Amino acid sequence: MAVYTHLGAEQLASLLNEYDVGNLVSAKGIAEGVSNSNWLIETTQDRFILTMYERRTDVSDLPFFLGLLDHLAETDCPVPKTIHDRNGALSREIDGKAVALIEFLPGVSPSVPSAAQAKAVGESLARMHLATANYPEQRINDMGALAWPEIAAACGDNALATIDPSLPLIVRKHLVSLQAEWPGALPTGVVHADLFPDNVLFVGDEVSGMIDFYFACTDTFAYDLAVTHAAWCFDRTGQAFDAELSDALLEGYENVRPLTPEERASLPTLAKGASMRFILSRADDWLNTPDDALVERKNPMDFVRRLEFYERMGDRSFS
Amino acid sequence: MAVYTHLGAEQLASLLNEYDVGNLVSAKGIAEGVSNSNWLIETTQDRFILTMYERRTDVSDLPFFLGLLDHLAETDCPVPKTIHDRNGALSREIDGKAVALIEFLPGVSPSVPSAAQAKAVGESLARMHLATANYPEQRINDMGALAWPEIAAACGDNALATIDPSLPLIVRKHLVSLQAEWPGALPTGVVHADLFPDNVLFVGDEVSGMIDFYFACTDTFAYDLAVTHAAWCFDRTGQAFDAELSDALLEGYENVRPLTPEERASLPTLAKGASMRFILSRADDWLNTPDDALVERKNPMDFVRRLEFYERMGDRSFS
Repeated sequence: MAVYTHLGAEQLASLLNEYDVGNLVSAKGIAEGVSNSNWLIETTQDRFILTMYERRTDVSDLPFFLGLLDHLAETDCPVPKTIHDRNGALSREIDGKAVALIEFLPGVSPSVPSAAQAKAVGESLARMHLATANYPEQRINDMGALAWPEIAAACGDNALATIDPSLPLIVRKHLVSLQAEWPGALPTGVVHADLFPDNVLFVGDEVSGMIDFYFACTDTFAYDLAVTHAAWCFDRTGQAFDAELSDALLEGYENVRPLTPEERASLPTLAKGASMRFILSRADDWLNTPDDALVERKNPMDFVRRLEFYERMGDRSFS
Repeated sequence: MAVYTHLGAEQLASLLNEYDVGNLVSAKGIAEGVSNSNWLIETTQDRFILTMYERRTDVSDLPFFLGLLDHLAETDCPVPKTIHDRNGALSREIDGKAVALIEFLPGVSPSVPSAAQAKAVGESLARMHLATANYPEQRINDMGALAWPEIAAACGDNALATIDPSLPLIVRKHLVSLQAEWPGALPTGVVHADLFPDNVLFVGDEVSGMIDFYFACTDTFAYDLAVTHAAWCFDRTGQAFDAELSDALLEGYENVRPLTPEERASLPTLAKGASMRFILSRADDWLNTPDDALVERKNPMDFVRRLEFYERMGDRSFS
């Protein structure tokens, strides 16, 4: 959580002149997101979030991400609209780095979500899935099931073992079984793929915003629900499962978009896959984050515990 | 620039219940200040800055700092008011750490100040000096002239030489001459003592806020002006002096509070002292900041260049 780049008031003011948003009144670098720098900007007209894409985000994907926000905002999905510049562009450049201005949404992210909030996020996720049906763009999930063996190989057994001695074998064993079990031909569309509580804003128990779409991609809807389940229904370390949150999340989702029998039956495998995705991305970050970096390293073992829960409980994880 | 502590939405909401400020709508950790964590808080009523005192700030000094904000805000000084809790307290505790809620002020800090802005900050500084006359509290300047030999000794010549081989001798030589030249009996009161451009907010060329009073203390007004001069009238590295900014700053100050002849004559010595203060605090930070800390280390040599400028130019630094 950091701001990686210093942007002077003069640079910000001149950037804002390229948009029809009024004049700069206030700008605060905000400690949000791990890959990009963000500022909360106030102008004489309104408030906005300015994002500078620092790393990990491939700028050639920006039209997909930012166009998606516009597409979803046109439906009843609570996502921030992209502000277009005076020429209609979705993003601009400062000092060779891409930046985008998006709508500021009120709300706060819960540290300990309530069942009412889990239900609301299920409903919002399902609405988003329905709304992406006619979004014409596609993006491969470069953190999806096909990518996991490669990420694991790039980390290497020896390095994984430095995180936890058991980790190489756990990864190896589950990669094999996931490959065997992974379901095909489920309903597919554009998914968020990273809808942790951090990425949802609430006013009370109502979702005021789903944010941080920079992993959004084309994948199966049920996988997105499984990611959200793994992200919402455990304590931080993955040790304690909360069945009430799980029930509420699924109820909310199915109120809007009932799962097909095949989706429902696939959830345990998809949730093991979702756990694998975060084990591997966290392991990769853990091993490749310099000690002096401005981000907090997250423990991959928190998701090993989730994976083992889904393995142990199977269908009962979702009932 | 970082947020050192995670504060959950639930903790923030329950903190705000202790104040008469409405309910939590939004909270963003902001990358501001180097010693404390700060959040920009929006409630159903207004916006606020929440500061958590992490280190360096001695909590026994909080009544001095926060009472000063209230005192100054009651005059025409543009400083944020402290918000008192329902029992009238200026600060509270969360998890054993002191926190204070203060008014949010609009405005941005210039990276490259204009002459009009330097003049405005001179006027605001002088108004602040006049307004502190009847503030009853006192606080020793623990970064003042009396403390410098001790800070230099604590760093040690060998360590200082790791920053720059010339640094130990420069510090030693000027500590001796500063001790000999240091003026006594100048007009004294409560001063800001750290009024860098970062700590001033502008809307256009008007000062909308002087912020970050956590070095405020009892010292001579002319020393505060000298600190401000060293902070505003050079480029970042201290290589380029800007005479136009210098003239504007002094003109603005004297428009509100004309200097006595003794103050005016002391400015070169006071400005060398101001430079020494930041050489030493930066050296101390440089040597004692772990490599993985979340703050950017600032180069003490930027202020050696200022010190040498004041030494070389004497009175002409201020004409």
